[in-house]
Amino acid sequence: MSFKLTSKYLEELKDKLEVGSVVDVVENLQELHPADVAEILDELKINNVQSILAEYREEERADILVELDEDVRAKVLDETTGKDIAETLVDNLESDDAADIIGELDEQKKREVFTHIEDREQAQEIASLLTHAEDTAGALMATELIQVNENWMVLTCVKEMRKQAEDVDKVHAVYVVDDEGILLGSLSLKKLLTTSTKTPIRDIYEKKIQSVKTTTPDEEVAILMSKYDLFVIPVVDDLGALCGRITLDDVVDIIREEADRDYQLASGITEDVEAADKLIPQTRARLPWLVIGLFGGLIAATVISTNENKIAFIPQLAFFMPLIAAMGGNVGVQSSAIIVQALANQTFSGTILDKLVKELLIGLINGLICSTILFGASNLLGYSSKLATTVSIALFCVIIFASLFGTFIPLVLNRFKIDPAVATGPFITTINDILGLSIYFYIGKIVFGF
Amino acid sequence: MSFKLTSKYLEELKDKLEVGSVVDVVENLQELHPADVAEILDELKINNVQSILAEYREEERADILVELDEDVRAKVLDETTGKDIAETLVDNLESDDAADIIGELDEQKKREVFTHIEDREQAQEIASLLTHAEDTAGALMATELIQVNENWMVLTCVKEMRKQAEDVDKVHAVYVVDDEGILLGSLSLKKLLTTSTKTPIRDIYEKKIQSVKTTTPDEEVAILMSKYDLFVIPVVDDLGALCGRITLDDVVDIIREEADRDYQLASGITEDVEAADKLIPQTRARLPWLVIGLFGGLIAATVISTNENKIAFIPQLAFFMPLIAAMGGNVGVQSSAIIVQALANQTFSGTILDKLVKELLIGLINGLICSTILFGASNLLGYSSKLATTVSIALFCVIIFASLFGTFIPLVLNRFKIDPAVATGPFITTINDILGLSIYFYIGKIVFGF
Repeated sequence: MSFKLTSKYLEELKDKLEVGSVVDVVENLQELHPADVAEILDELKINNVQSILAEYREEERADILVELDEDVRAKVLDETTGKDIAETLVDNLESDDAADIIGELDEQKKREVFTHIEDREQAQEIASLLTHAEDTAGALMATELIQVNENWMVLTCVKEMRKQAEDVDKVHAVYVVDDEGILLGSLSLKKLLTTSTKTPIRDIYEKKIQSVKTTTPDEEVAILMSKYDLFVIPVVDDLGALCGRITLDDVVDIIREEADRDYQLASGITEDVEAADKLIPQTRARLPWLVIGLFGGLIAATVISTNENKIAFIPQLAFFMPLIAAMGGNVGVQSSAIIVQALANQTFSGTILDKLVKELLIGLINGLICSTILFGASNLLGYSSKLATTVSIALFCVIIFASLFGTFIPLVLNRFKIDPAVATGPFITTINDILGLSIYFYIGKIVFGF
Repeated sequence: MSFKLTSKYLEELKDKLEVGSVVDVVENLQELHPADVAEILDELKINNVQSILAEYREEERADILVELDEDVRAKVLDETTGKDIAETLVDNLESDDAADIIGELDEQKKREVFTHIEDREQAQEIASLLTHAEDTAGALMATELIQVNENWMVLTCVKEMRKQAEDVDKVHAVYVVDDEGILLGSLSLKKLLTTSTKTPIRDIYEKKIQSVKTTTPDEEVAILMSKYDLFVIPVVDDLGALCGRITLDDVVDIIREEADRDYQLASGITEDVEAADKLIPQTRARLPWLVIGLFGGLIAATVISTNENKIAFIPQLAFFMPLIAAMGGNVGVQSSAIIVQALANQTFSGTILDKLVKELLIGLINGLICSTILFGASNLLGYSSKLATTVSIALFCVIIFASLFGTFIPLVLNRFKIDPAVATGPFITTINDILGLSIYFYIGKIVFGF
């Protein structure tokens, strides 16, 4: 039932494009969902993409365009006139999708498109969607919805709904507003169909309703909708007037993107890149973290160089430097990951002190276990007992410190409105490397009595 | 509109429970969504949870129970009789939620609950839901759905739907089946209401329909539903017979859990733990990775110890060991994160060789930039030119190797059906530490001419 793009399929299709006609290829694609067609087009040369798209009817073309990769879509629209874009997009897509795509165009093209939208009301709606700040409910919402007035009777209401429903592909919910357009509640279809036609809406609507503001961050919308299992949520302005609605499928995309970004940040990748992306964005996304790591390493080198005499005297001290540095990094990342996740999912409760005490206890247990293993192992491997003592005590201290640091840093970043996910990347590893080595040499100094 | 649990709110509520009556507290909670009530109960002592729950009507109690943390729910149900569980859950929850909770009980309690489900058909349905393997569509689906026969007329169909709809809270879709119960397609409400009552269903239903099998992994269901923007998907057995349906809200939970797990694996945490979890699970989830890191460090120590004479001779060589080890780890994690994500989102296309070549190129560019910076910086910091040469060349080689390793390992793990997310954890950092140091000393040997 579901389509999976394989490299074999792609190769065959490319071969067909070389020898056969585009019409044949499009015939082959006919059975596929627009999302699948877009997945294929993303992999083709731009002139092939254009000629394949030209074979589709306007409505299907719009559905495929929405699903295309942003870069590919930019290339396609670059060679499309403002008039064509207006005609393809505006009547065939929901307002949020149309606005998203128009928002990606450069200013001149954007103006061109707007002058060619025939329905001025529609043009205004899309233009107003474009004014909302990125990553807010306003930028995510669509304006297509069914709204009824609290003063209407059931009969008027059903008639009006039929009229409105023509513009709306799928009825997700029916919202009740007052004369000012202020959102009051929602109406269940069941109620509507089982109540006498002369009942006023005022008497039968559900007053308890979750809504978000146009300025609510989209991540908060995602948390809200998934917590309360909502399929659709209305969006209101500062006065409480109904502006639009957000459906769960859009929120799923937000959740996925957010998760991908956090994962990449934790792995030391700053921009949103995918495996399929080109060389330069891939390189650029990784370099900043590597440079941070590099300077961290240089600081670590300085820390060690101040201990040169100890190493010259007891070269064995150097053996365990990578172990101490790596363990500090590992523990720090573990502690901060837990905090970052709790902050992202808004499941963080209790005070900072609570968390620090808890991490301290976890650090104590894991530190004790790891140090004991290390002491046993290094004795077994024939290292001197002084060295074994130094590394075990140092490891214990490093684990405790790294636990506390790993907890503290993301909380501080969050307080200063910096994405705490940054803290689980090479940043914390690097800090812990330096901290760990300092502790190590300090303990070494005491044990060996320099 | 939306509730946020603060520590202040919780403290006040706990105080009220100490002095006031439970009834007053429940009065306060009355306005809240069951998900919010559950969030509060998760933080209270078990006897308080029990007495608060006792104040709720059966239906609300069921809704709160579903949302409770698994540990808390286990404690609550432990002290509830099988009869009470059967009465609370079965009539008030959708089959999938009821089955999930019953599935968590021990065998004896489970049997007890089943003997107290009065409707034998319902008991059988829940029992059969429990037979599906974990993490499959079968375990995720609910059996409540509206199905009509292709041979019915529109009139019969509407009558039957009204009857079925009584058992179904929310109508997500109407499915069309043949006499054998084989899924044929779906019916839009619009079509149903605008067609003459004597038309056979056969002539008006939509035959193109996405479905999944009961054995389809739930992650695949999630990818499918989010790719095709589906709010509900039907589930069929091996013969194609309609068994149930999965709604997008359940899939959102899967996506979140999956993202959290990947993030935790990448941070070196094995079990699914949250910041709020108790000390022991938190400790246990982290220890395995620390022990792996520990043994990796011991191997690194051995690698260094075989180069003891070089360090004794040129102690400065030791300065840059942490830098080399850390950079190898960072690069390896970056490369593997990209691959892990592509595999998880099923956006991986092209051959392994393609990826390796690409990572090699990225490694070449970043390696060249980082090595140049390092060479400049270490000269500037007054390290000998031989040392600067050694570390720069070593860094370049380490970045290349780590890129290739980071790409290769998750792909190999995936081939052997091991979750590739494991590869971005301390595992790859540790391997790269060892590899990096070996390269470093090898280059040092050549440059210094030992």
